[in-house]
Amino acid sequence: MSAKKTEFNDLNAYWLVGFVDGEGCFSVSFNRKPSMVLGIEARPSFSVSQKSHSYEVLESIQNYLGCGGIRFSKSDGTYKFEVRSLAQLRANVLPFFLTYRLLTNKRHDFEKFEEVCDLIAGGQHLNVAGLSKIVELAYAMNGSGKRKYSKEELLKFFNKLKL
Amino acid sequence: MSAKKTEFNDLNAYWLVGFVDGEGCFSVSFNRKPSMVLGIEARPSFSVSQKSHSYEVLESIQNYLGCGGIRFSKSDGTYKFEVRSLAQLRANVLPFFLTYRLLTNKRHDFEKFEEVCDLIAGGQHLNVAGLSKIVELAYAMNGSGKRKYSKEELLKFFNKLKL
Repeated sequence: MSAKKTEFNDLNAYWLVGFVDGEGCFSVSFNRKPSMVLGIEARPSFSVSQKSHSYEVLESIQNYLGCGGIRFSKSDGTYKFEVRSLAQLRANVLPFFLTYRLLTNKRHDFEKFEEVCDLIAGGQHLNVAGLSKIVELAYAMNGSGKRKYSKEELLKFFNKLKL
Repeated sequence: MSAKKTEFNDLNAYWLVGFVDGEGCFSVSFNRKPSMVLGIEARPSFSVSQKSHSYEVLESIQNYLGCGGIRFSKSDGTYKFEVRSLAQLRANVLPFFLTYRLLTNKRHDFEKFEEVCDLIAGGQHLNVAGLSKIVELAYAMNGSGKRKYSKEELLKFFNKLKL
């Protein structure tokens, strides 16, 4: 194991940004949560998935960024490194990708993701206009996978609260 | 466009190895080719695919490695940067990944791929024992996608020539 650990010390910032350009995912999911002002919770998440034989790379990324957790995803049989905490996203993940810029089109996802995190940090998810903006940004991102709700369903759900 | 070009100058070796750890593919395919001694041609290929909106990253990789071509893949609607020339693989691609080591399990694919390239360069694809070894290595690699022939079909095909 020690040989492997030594190799993983080679992980550097540019390797990580390249890896995330290839495999990483910035997404914002939405859940109904009656305790929230608008009944909807917006959850930003940064994740990277790998099959079990590359599990140690995920640990290495976790150590490197100093945050996040690793869990097994039954749906596709992969392990997923994930950061969901808004505080950790803003303290560790966003600054990293603002310093080491993504080179693929994923950069545009990151920019929207960053804006969503800022809006939530500023409490904008608690008013209709702010949450609408978050929904628009989230649904304009690629790689968000399957959605529980369509954008229209979501917007309709909390917009009707205005009436 | 000039702003983008400047950004792509940021592409460096570690970014590339990270990106390939995430998205790259080392594979060896086999085709029937009656003009070959054993009737089978082994074709090693290194490739990276992206959707059209990240096409420029593929050009950047092509420039960086100084070889390969980019083509549209109808089957999945992506653009694929690919190096198929054995000479270019040995002159440009293999030395790069021997210097900048892959950190995920894909490294094991690369090691098998390198061995296949060396075997072909040494003419070992022209005898049954050598080609059998190439087939075994190729089918032990991940990410090789759909296969035209099963390993058993291939081995049977050219082994019967021995009789």
